[in-house]
Amino acid sequence: MISRLLRNRTIVQTISRTSTIRCLSTFEKHRTVFESLGLDKTNNKGVFDGEWKGSGDIVPSYNPVNNEIIAEVITGTPDDLNTAFEKLPAPKRGHVMLTMRNALVENLQPLGKLVSLEMGKILPEGIGEVQEYIDILEYALGLSRTMQGAIIPSERPGHAMLETWNPLGTVVAVYGWNCAIALITGNGTIWKPAPTTSLVSIAITRIIAKALKDHDMPTSLCALVTGGTDVGQSMVQDKRAHVLSFTGSTEVGRQVGKVVQGRFGKSILELGGNNAIIVTDDCDLDLAARAILFAAVGTAGQRCTTTRRLIVQETVYDTLVERLKKAYKQVKVGDPLDEGVLCGPLHTKQAVESYKKALEQVKAEGGEIITGGRVIEDGPLKNGNFVEPTMTRVRPDMNVVQHEAFTLDEAIAINNNVAQGLSSSIFTSNPSTIFKWIGPSGSDCGIINVNIPTNGAEIGGAFGGEKETGGGRESGSDSWKQYCRRGTCTINYSGALPLAQGINFG
Amino acid sequence: MISRLLRNRTIVQTISRTSTIRCLSTFEKHRTVFESLGLDKTNNKGVFDGEWKGSGDIVPSYNPVNNEIIAEVITGTPDDLNTAFEKLPAPKRGHVMLTMRNALVENLQPLGKLVSLEMGKILPEGIGEVQEYIDILEYALGLSRTMQGAIIPSERPGHAMLETWNPLGTVVAVYGWNCAIALITGNGTIWKPAPTTSLVSIAITRIIAKALKDHDMPTSLCALVTGGTDVGQSMVQDKRAHVLSFTGSTEVGRQVGKVVQGRFGKSILELGGNNAIIVTDDCDLDLAARAILFAAVGTAGQRCTTTRRLIVQETVYDTLVERLKKAYKQVKVGDPLDEGVLCGPLHTKQAVESYKKALEQVKAEGGEIITGGRVIEDGPLKNGNFVEPTMTRVRPDMNVVQHEAFTLDEAIAINNNVAQGLSSSIFTSNPSTIFKWIGPSGSDCGIINVNIPTNGAEIGGAFGGEKETGGGRESGSDSWKQYCRRGTCTINYSGALPLAQGINFG
Amino acid sequence: MISRLLRNRTIVQTISRTSTIRCLSTFEKHRTVFESLGLDKTNNKGVFDGEWKGSGDIVPSYNPVNNEIIAEVITGTPDDLNTAFEKLPAPKRGHVMLTMRNALVENLQPLGKLVSLEMGKILPEGIGEVQEYIDILEYALGLSRTMQGAIIPSERPGHAMLETWNPLGTVVAVYGWNCAIALITGNGTIWKPAPTTSLVSIAITRIIAKALKDHDMPTSLCALVTGGTDVGQSMVQDKRAHVLSFTGSTEVGRQVGKVVQGRFGKSILELGGNNAIIVTDDCDLDLAARAILFAAVGTAGQRCTTTRRLIVQETVYDTLVERLKKAYKQVKVGDPLDEGVLCGPLHTKQAVESYKKALEQVKAEGGEIITGGRVIEDGPLKNGNFVEPTMTRVRPDMNVVQHEAFTLDEAIAINNNVAQGLSSSIFTSNPSTIFKWIGPSGSDCGIINVNIPTNGAEIGGAFGGEKETGGGRESGSDSWKQYCRRGTCTINYSGALPLAQGINFG
Amino acid sequence: MISRLLRNRTIVQTISRTSTIRCLSTFEKHRTVFESLGLDKTNNKGVFDGEWKGSGDIVPSYNPVNNEIIAEVITGTPDDLNTAFEKLPAPKRGHVMLTMRNALVENLQPLGKLVSLEMGKILPEGIGEVQEYIDILEYALGLSRTMQGAIIPSERPGHAMLETWNPLGTVVAVYGWNCAIALITGNGTIWKPAPTTSLVSIAITRIIAKALKDHDMPTSLCALVTGGTDVGQSMVQDKRAHVLSFTGSTEVGRQVGKVVQGRFGKSILELGGNNAIIVTDDCDLDLAARAILFAAVGTAGQRCTTTRRLIVQETVYDTLVERLKKAYKQVKVGDPLDEGVLCGPLHTKQAVESYKKALEQVKAEGGEIITGGRVIEDGPLKNGNFVEPTMTRVRPDMNVVQHEAFTLDEAIAINNNVAQGLSSSIFTSNPSTIFKWIGPSGSDCGIINVNIPTNGAEIGGAFGGEKETGGGRESGSDSWKQYCRRGTCTINYSGALPLAQGINFG
Repeated sequence: MISRLLRNRTIVQTISRTSTIRCLSTFEKHRTVFESLGLDKTNNKGVFDGEWKGSGDIVPSYNPVNNEIIAEVITGTPDDLNTAFEKLPAPKRGHVMLTMRNALVENLQPLGKLVSLEMGKILPEGIGEVQEYIDILEYALGLSRTMQGAIIPSERPGHAMLETWNPLGTVVAVYGWNCAIALITGNGTIWKPAPTTSLVSIAITRIIAKALKDHDMPTSLCALVTGGTDVGQSMVQDKRAHVLSFTGSTEVGRQVGKVVQGRFGKSILELGGNNAIIVTDDCDLDLAARAILFAAVGTAGQRCTTTRRLIVQETVYDTLVERLKKAYKQVKVGDPLDEGVLCGPLHTKQAVESYKKALEQVKAEGGEIITGGRVIEDGPLKNGNFVEPTMTRVRPDMNVVQHEAFTLDEAIAINNNVAQGLSSSIFTSNPSTIFKWIGPSGSDCGIINVNIPTNGAEIGGAFGGEKETGGGRESGSDSWKQYCRRGTCTINYSGALPLAQGINFG
Repeated sequence: MISRLLRNRTIVQTISRTSTIRCLSTFEKHRTVFESLGLDKTNNKGVFDGEWKGSGDIVPSYNPVNNEIIAEVITGTPDDLNTAFEKLPAPKRGHVMLTMRNALVENLQPLGKLVSLEMGKILPEGIGEVQEYIDILEYALGLSRTMQGAIIPSERPGHAMLETWNPLGTVVAVYGWNCAIALITGNGTIWKPAPTTSLVSIAITRIIAKALKDHDMPTSLCALVTGGTDVGQSMVQDKRAHVLSFTGSTEVGRQVGKVVQGRFGKSILELGGNNAIIVTDDCDLDLAARAILFAAVGTAGQRCTTTRRLIVQETVYDTLVERLKKAYKQVKVGDPLDEGVLCGPLHTKQAVESYKKALEQVKAEGGEIITGGRVIEDGPLKNGNFVEPTMTRVRPDMNVVQHEAFTLDEAIAINNNVAQGLSSSIFTSNPSTIFKWIGPSGSDCGIINVNIPTNGAEIGGAFGGEKETGGGRESGSDSWKQYCRRGTCTINYSGALPLAQGINFG
Repeated sequence: MISRLLRNRTIVQTISRTSTIRCLSTFEKHRTVFESLGLDKTNNKGVFDGEWKGSGDIVPSYNPVNNEIIAEVITGTPDDLNTAFEKLPAPKRGHVMLTMRNALVENLQPLGKLVSLEMGKILPEGIGEVQEYIDILEYALGLSRTMQGAIIPSERPGHAMLETWNPLGTVVAVYGWNCAIALITGNGTIWKPAPTTSLVSIAITRIIAKALKDHDMPTSLCALVTGGTDVGQSMVQDKRAHVLSFTGSTEVGRQVGKVVQGRFGKSILELGGNNAIIVTDDCDLDLAARAILFAAVGTAGQRCTTTRRLIVQETVYDTLVERLKKAYKQVKVGDPLDEGVLCGPLHTKQAVESYKKALEQVKAEGGEIITGGRVIEDGPLKNGNFVEPTMTRVRPDMNVVQHEAFTLDEAIAINNNVAQGLSSSIFTSNPSTIFKWIGPSGSDCGIINVNIPTNGAEIGGAFGGEKETGGGRESGSDSWKQYCRRGTCTINYSGALPLAQGINFG
Repeated sequence: MISRLLRNRTIVQTISRTSTIRCLSTFEKHRTVFESLGLDKTNNKGVFDGEWKGSGDIVPSYNPVNNEIIAEVITGTPDDLNTAFEKLPAPKRGHVMLTMRNALVENLQPLGKLVSLEMGKILPEGIGEVQEYIDILEYALGLSRTMQGAIIPSERPGHAMLETWNPLGTVVAVYGWNCAIALITGNGTIWKPAPTTSLVSIAITRIIAKALKDHDMPTSLCALVTGGTDVGQSMVQDKRAHVLSFTGSTEVGRQVGKVVQGRFGKSILELGGNNAIIVTDDCDLDLAARAILFAAVGTAGQRCTTTRRLIVQETVYDTLVERLKKAYKQVKVGDPLDEGVLCGPLHTKQAVESYKKALEQVKAEGGEIITGGRVIEDGPLKNGNFVEPTMTRVRPDMNVVQHEAFTLDEAIAINNNVAQGLSSSIFTSNPSTIFKWIGPSGSDCGIINVNIPTNGAEIGGAFGGEKETGGGRESGSDSWKQYCRRGTCTINYSGALPLAQGINFG
């Protein structure tokens, strides 16, 4: 009846069930990982709103190394959650974050392994992913006492002007960054994971829920709904999703953004990057080469901050390319859990198709494949989504490429002349170049690096991109404000009623 | 050819001209005002992009006191502007703001009078409007040295993490707040005024342009395009309008927001308010009554922060309503430039029609007109857009109204239970009520007042509203950040390449 | 040879040893506490600079319950420490803080008990003391990513202006607040504890040192020197103590401040408070009475924020005093580790003497003892430093007391009219009173409370007092800046040399 | 009787009068300057506390060009001032600043000329000095709406924690920086100028006082007391001088600091600098040479930020020194108001004596005079305090100088290895050098420049130095906080009384 009730969150369950064929050899091989995380072969309920549910589709999770099913998840859609978190003072919420952090630390190894299994990342990256969640929870603990409102000087005697930041209600969160910041600012969260990472999301939600319980907080504060596009779409439209964080393609993000804007909700969009590295002739080429290798090949080139473009000064082009060719050939491709493997499979079969098409287009436009370029279709990796680390030179009729040399302004223009604006790097030893690069006439990306690759952002800085990357900032700096409504409060304690701007009325 | 060129701004002129009948007695009566501001009877060019143009429609500006034409404006659409402002250091931009401010101070009286003429506001309000622009320019001068970026601790040795705020390019600005903040952050602006206030916009642009010239800055930094809906729509769609500020109805704002979001631009929406005052039984009733009168009747109830709803505790209802009835009857309605007049005309004839419909609806639903309720259709005011100051009681079957008393939680729920979220006030002498009201379970508006009415915001605080009011903040606090792109810059000056999250790659 | 070497810290040991008579029944009774913390009966080395030393005086630590020796400490003075902490990035230092925190959590019970034993606090307060250290370490973890420098707009094109905060070197710290903030800002610390709390300081240093070791940091970063006045004085004079935090009497603090100022060091002084509570006639008297009891009697009135003065509106005086008299009489005095005891002994025998003198003075000046007023010299507590909880009325010839009523301004004047300025409270339900109290004409203390007693500060807010309380702020808000040197850095990357203020020189 | 009264300021006048011989040819020559500023030949009252007074010594002001008397000032000491400024809201105080600014702009030329006359600066520098005051008033206007307090998350439900910044009372200010910041934070000021610049202080106080009057503020808010050491000392000791800003020698500053600390006042010390420029071999030598010339010879080397030491890499030493020698010889020395003169006289005869002694010491220690080195004792300048611009090489047995080359660490060590810590510069094109220089192992000065000289600070950055330079920051960044007392306010509006740290008491 009253507006506060609008904050209830209803989960309508879908009922259709599909049966799937089960070939769970991965499960058997890594049984201890699954057991330590409380995951089952076939009976993993994928909806959590305080208790575990799931009467929706049964969706298998695949191992991209061999495309075998790891385990199955019973999916669903949101129903009946309520929030009490905002009444807990922020420093107390910080303590909940600390408990969550400690629980993740205890489960770091199995969780990291599960990430590797389900996403195809090499183990250090799988563990790194969980570690990042741990870091952000520590960061949220810190915010719990330092997220300040303001007292602003009022022009009226006997008036206090305060700026407050209060929770919005419910955040549809991408874990773990959104989750931690949403919770510390007093919101509840719903996690709608990618359908391909359901097992990780269930395992983490179990751990998080226990931490909430330890603090006598409703576990529904961190709800989970696994599921497909339909689940996602209903959340996008739902007025009760005060903040909706979305990570995905520009095209879907554009639609999501418009729908959320149309209902005056807030969206945090983390869309595609088309990230470039500029290599100048005054840089440390060795440093640049190692950085490029790491940024282009790491996570099989699937990070949002992966380097996709190189803009290289002509005078250093040959040297750099030779070095990279040699390095690319040494990169061991294989099962990400195997020792020495640096490059795992692509995440899905679709990604392999996209890879093929992109290469065909390069050729069609007269470009050149410098190294790699092949889908691995034979040998022990033939059942997985493996491709060779690949570098191409774009078509030679492009103006810029014909230049013997380009100016800094031209290089920056090429960097900026794409629709996306996530990450960008320059390698240089010139202070003037550095400060131009980070200034008003420099990179127009959200992440602007110098002498480090496009990836590897720290949690303390605001993370996100400009232009078609969506403009959202998930975490870092003052991005916690995005999870709040801002109140400009003026309190007249004078007993008198002076009016602004000198108007004398009545 | 390169992305920077995308920032050029093209104004395509429309050519159709309509002739209008001229009855410019207002012009003759206030000839000195117009002459001091350089305005003509019929030949006011309404496009400025460094020079004055206008080959579009000729649009008259009406005096709402008698619906006579004041003067005519030749309208148009945007063409060929370029920005150099971002290269001027912010403190230097501050000096441009100071020159603008001084020029407005010199023209305060005629400008104030022109606002009164064109908008129908009483003179103190007309002058107050210009004074507000002067204030915001001073505020922008202050920002010129205090808009700080940040140095954030990096977790990597030999790395510096900086957060920079650089201009976006072009801001479609509502004057004067947007203009001042957009300029001080290094952007250029285009002003598309409401078609009903063309003369004010031309007069101010003249003054502003001279200030830019005095500093050898391109005057096109503050472009003006008067015109109708088509001009507005082309700006909304134009990718080069990096920030688009819109003030208007929720329905138009919803469309504007979606289009701008669809092209990943930034919008600052200032849409309708449905502002309430809660009157508790522990408040100073005299203070409350004066505040309500000012907030409901001032500017003929046409401010975005005008009070539209009263939520009154039953025990003080009769006393308060009696006082207000008496006060309403004393309010002198008339020509806003006449001595003693407190309430001028509505701004347009359409507003008079809306007034009528609203009253009919109240009656249809069983509500009651407490005072006022009549369009003034005879006497000397009959040609203007005048109506009586009016107060109604909504239909008595509403649950809440039947209550003998309501709790604070209920009153807050009523306040929040509308689609809009601009401004809100409570009158109380209870600290517990005050802090609840400004806290997470309090008002969900952007402006949250105590013992002052819903209007009268100061420029230092963030101004704007939540929910269907649009979420934008034009000015105050850190809202200057909305006019900027944020860069998270990491500079590796170590010569080494440590990688985040402990990944050891290659 | 170069300035950086000045940061070495030399500890010159004193050699005189005194033997003491040992009657360590307390030790035997609480043997498990001591064993779990690694403390010995007689052989506790009291100097730590990376390894444990101590060739100075043997100083016993007494149990104020019975003035028996708890255990003995071999004291000393500083020698040869070096710092490497500043080279560790702040977020990494945060992880050291987290490890320290976890170690204290594990030892919370025995540490809390040891605090109770050595200081005479009741157990919840002993544990609360350690908990506060734990809290501040979490807070420091948070700071590790949020202590921001600034990028300030420069008025010169091609120039960047940065504000940096770098560590000063060595902080003579009062644990735990100073220690945590000093470490997180990159400094090393030396702890010179009060001679009466040597055992706690040794036990904590053990735990802290282990945490440093776990992170491969030099354990000498947290040095300890137990000892007497001579040790303290040499630190005050030592140029290498870049920041010196001192908690103690105004008179000693005045000397400390002057010496440190004379060598242009920084001091953080936390001197005496003469804290008052104002009780107005519009407050919740029950709340006020409970708060006063807690604030005046808790920790046997020995906190720096203990309430020492009551300023009570005449109309509520009798009611309040009756309530307090009744409550005071119910307070159980005794061994702080016994169940139900709310008031333990004074910390030292000297404190008992001061108590006696203060009461004599009250009587001499015509004042009145309302309740309490007796040293407990018989019964089972006779060997301890026990006194009755006591309340007096100051001499009735004081002007203010004669008034039947006072105004708010007068009450504030009485509050402010003492030399000290630590903490102050008002009990009221009037918003106007609240905002006056916290405004420019209100309390001139560093801590300004409303409807809570003078004690109970949170770590997020700046803690410390004005006037003769010394002006220092140990922790909270931006007080971390006190542990840093501020650098205003201007980087010209333009290649040109414009000069400020338009001077054209050569 | 009550503490607020302590803020009154009493001026006890001294009565002794000395007569002086008058040879006021400078006055006649620049009569228009004096008349436009309202200054007289002999009858300039030097005390202002709302009205102009002065029964103390008559002190002449000398022209350092010829040591003739410019005009005479009747000096005195403080009496009976009261403050009402704190009750004016900060934004209103901002408007007073704006009026002061405008009045100074109107008087820029004559004031600049008077500065030149009285201080011996060349005219652009004289005008620059006044311009700086104008700038700081604009800056203070900006602060008037942006000096924020904070709302800090409280760990207790139903509690609000606010951090407030309220004025301290009276600031003994060095104009204009201190004055503007002291006023905008709500304090009153007393100006005790150097005895050698009395005329400037009287002229400015006249202008400032008029601005206060225009706003109906008590003009005594900006009191003036010209006078000698006795006047200064009484202020240092006076408890009512809540903040005392002192600019002068380290030795006097040390005493001042100790006395103010002893009474728990606040001092802002701006003591001597021993500023160095490091010239690396990778820098732009031309830029460096021009910067050094400007920084060493400008204002005849008398700015606090004047470069006093050069630390030059051996490989570029000869080239740099040759360039500087040539440049030094071209610097025209003479009457600072004459066209083309770049170097005026020293400020006083004592300064000439110090110059001589310093050169003798260089020679005695085996150093070498590279260029200059002579007091000008013949020709038309013989009566003034003129010396040649001078460069020396310090004694060649210094270890560092013998090195063929030094490392960056060594150069930084030399920079830091002096007692003072005001300003410092490095000339380099290496980013790694830049970030080391501004980091924890870099310059330990308050001002840390790159590729600009040691002087030329901007008002937006904090200005002041570390170590024996005193640690004060007059203006810029958050140094306004030094003029305030900080209040940590906790407001319990819950009606309940939870206690921090979980203590359950009674």
